[in-house]
Amino acid sequence: MITPRTLKGFRDYLPAQALAREWVLETARTVYRSYGFAPIDTPALEYLEILTGKGSDETDKQLYRFTDHGGRDVGMRFDLTVPFARFAAQHVGSLGLPFKRYHMATVWRGENTQRGRYREFMQCDFDTIGTTSPVSDLETVLVVHDLLVAIGIEGFTIRLNDRRSLTGILDQAGLAAKQTDVLRALDKLGKASAEAVGQELAGHGIEADTIERLLGMASLSGPPQEVLAKLRDLVGGSEIGNAGLSGLSQIIDGVAAAGVPEGRVVIDPSIARGLDYYTGLVLESFLDELPSLGSICSGGRYDNLAGLYTKQPLPGVGASLGLDRLLAGLEELGKLPSAETPADVFLAFFADEHLSDYLRLASALRARGVAVEFYPEPKKLGVQLKLAAKRGHRAALIIGTDEFAAGKARLKLMASGESRDIYWAGDPARLAEGVHAALAAVAG
Amino acid sequence: MITPRTLKGFRDYLPAQALAREWVLETARTVYRSYGFAPIDTPALEYLEILTGKGSDETDKQLYRFTDHGGRDVGMRFDLTVPFARFAAQHVGSLGLPFKRYHMATVWRGENTQRGRYREFMQCDFDTIGTTSPVSDLETVLVVHDLLVAIGIEGFTIRLNDRRSLTGILDQAGLAAKQTDVLRALDKLGKASAEAVGQELAGHGIEADTIERLLGMASLSGPPQEVLAKLRDLVGGSEIGNAGLSGLSQIIDGVAAAGVPEGRVVIDPSIARGLDYYTGLVLESFLDELPSLGSICSGGRYDNLAGLYTKQPLPGVGASLGLDRLLAGLEELGKLPSAETPADVFLAFFADEHLSDYLRLASALRARGVAVEFYPEPKKLGVQLKLAAKRGHRAALIIGTDEFAAGKARLKLMASGESRDIYWAGDPARLAEGVHAALAAVAG
Repeated sequence: MITPRTLKGFRDYLPAQALAREWVLETARTVYRSYGFAPIDTPALEYLEILTGKGSDETDKQLYRFTDHGGRDVGMRFDLTVPFARFAAQHVGSLGLPFKRYHMATVWRGENTQRGRYREFMQCDFDTIGTTSPVSDLETVLVVHDLLVAIGIEGFTIRLNDRRSLTGILDQAGLAAKQTDVLRALDKLGKASAEAVGQELAGHGIEADTIERLLGMASLSGPPQEVLAKLRDLVGGSEIGNAGLSGLSQIIDGVAAAGVPEGRVVIDPSIARGLDYYTGLVLESFLDELPSLGSICSGGRYDNLAGLYTKQPLPGVGASLGLDRLLAGLEELGKLPSAETPADVFLAFFADEHLSDYLRLASALRARGVAVEFYPEPKKLGVQLKLAAKRGHRAALIIGTDEFAAGKARLKLMASGESRDIYWAGDPARLAEGVHAALAAVAG
Repeated sequence: MITPRTLKGFRDYLPAQALAREWVLETARTVYRSYGFAPIDTPALEYLEILTGKGSDETDKQLYRFTDHGGRDVGMRFDLTVPFARFAAQHVGSLGLPFKRYHMATVWRGENTQRGRYREFMQCDFDTIGTTSPVSDLETVLVVHDLLVAIGIEGFTIRLNDRRSLTGILDQAGLAAKQTDVLRALDKLGKASAEAVGQELAGHGIEADTIERLLGMASLSGPPQEVLAKLRDLVGGSEIGNAGLSGLSQIIDGVAAAGVPEGRVVIDPSIARGLDYYTGLVLESFLDELPSLGSICSGGRYDNLAGLYTKQPLPGVGASLGLDRLLAGLEELGKLPSAETPADVFLAFFADEHLSDYLRLASALRARGVAVEFYPEPKKLGVQLKLAAKRGHRAALIIGTDEFAAGKARLKLMASGESRDIYWAGDPARLAEGVHAALAAVAG
């Protein structure tokens, strides 16, 4: 006998968890598609040289790698950005530009599981490549907005910044040479205190009044156009800095035109993100009720996606939904569906001689788009209803010999325990209609 | 510069292929769910001993295996049955029985690619475990039926047999001791000629008139109840044989009660399948226009799913959709959507000063469920429409400065090239309504 177990850092998805995940994925898919993003997929395994090309020591260490049957050094993808860069370089000729894709797929990292991290998880990326248009930046913000709305989150904030305006501010402050150190320190704000960040900046030889100005800049908040006005003072005559601020301003105007309520999208000058990758817009998004969860959807603009694989410059902008983090947050907020079944209706089977009638009924319900779980054995009703309650069906449909004779059916609503009779006179379509109406009434 | 390339036997999914695959997966998901099958997922990596527990030499040879960072021997799953057996044994206590699950996920096999096989592909399994009820057998056939209908296939045939009736027939013919040899030979019918199969049977010392009877049995066809009557003669008094025939008869009656048209489900006594796994119902399904494609959805009943991992017997029944084979068949029949985009509408951008209006329009269309690709740069209309044609958008919405002034829009239907004017008077909701109506009219 072999002990059934999963590897450390890996997990099974039982139905309740798998249903919740499918619901978020389906929602993301619908929103991505509504903006014209098309799906792609790439192999789980790639040539090792593809994966390690740009990798840091950290990702290299975490990479699942081995030698395959043909003696090739291969690895399992650790993100979707590297495979997309390889994909874009390889297929750009047939894709056409600009190209918008989403990719929702599993990645693997041999991480330290003590931090509560999993070694297998899904990423949900969307990107627009082949254009430097600020309209694509704007659209990226709109997609994040629509996605969080579609998931049913009421309170969230999308925080924007632009790497170019940060550069401009540092140029003006005479800190161009120390840009990396400064941005790395500022990036810790939110996790570390302003005091700690200030000490780190002082350690790089930056003067006290400059530190004060930097920390003041990073803590600016309020209506977006007011924040932008204050940043304009700090940016002064810096061309790159003003380009960044003008991009942010255009996004703020655009999201308003597209109908995004005020306050949902703000400017947060403390956001820096991926120091060596992003070059323009950077964005993060937070649940208002759970800011400590961290950003659940983050991204930005980059100058060149696939420089390792092609000489054709591929600028782009995109973001990635942190699926596991979002699911954890929704669970904490009690906003995850908890059913273990996708079927609204449980059809009890206890009048053996009526099997054909049950089958007809189930077909009629399915034809109306109502998913039906039909219990496969004519067991005691109590046994069946106990399973129906455990699984979380919304309603149980109970029709025994007497009900068949009377042309009636009993619909038990599982949440309230309330029962109601539906008169159907032996017409499956009529019963299906009655069940459909009863469920719709409860949902409304 | 690193050459962008995929590993031998692996492939990228470009948008047209990924959209087609997502469409089939979404259809399968909806049908599986309509019967109450719930999703699960398991890790791509498992302990090697889990995967090799029951494996044949063939699967062992094809297994992607390696030693992970923690010194564990691990492998990538090569099917979804072994992980499901491990999963069921591990979680049966919390799942409740009977348990119905679907699992659509990627598997890996280091196969010989000369046969046109891929080393990475998806499987789409559904199973009911924890019951021996013939109703679950029946439901399995109904799911396969509804799935093929939902995919839009008009001509298909689901072929059923029962391993028990084959056993009964061989018992009656005095061939109980040679059952494995005989079934292995009969299983080749369809691929090999009756003559070749007859020679193989003769090689096992079976007499000519018995061979003739066996081949006659295997080639029986016609209305299901007639075939069953002939099989009853061959089965004689065999108890197990009659149990098998009675199960088949119940399925034939049940699918009729559930509304399946006559002729869609037939009895095919030549079907044996998986000699050491299936123990009751076996089923295959074929496209009438492409029988040479082989079975696109196959399965059957088994006595014990997880005997390697638990002492609790878990009988079950299920089937698996051959996704790649089905996609190849649909492509050959010209039934695959060919668009490279999920967005019906392409919104051209060429009146720069009207960016806000374009954004409002796109939002209004999306709010009505119409996916919109908005071109991000105000380029020449010809450049934009060329991309729209390549991508396969259904319609392009063209609104320049003049049209904005006149409160009009031009909707170009890409398939016919036909253009029509929509009067919207600056009201985005009105334009969205007009576009929605125009697209619905073309689809209808």
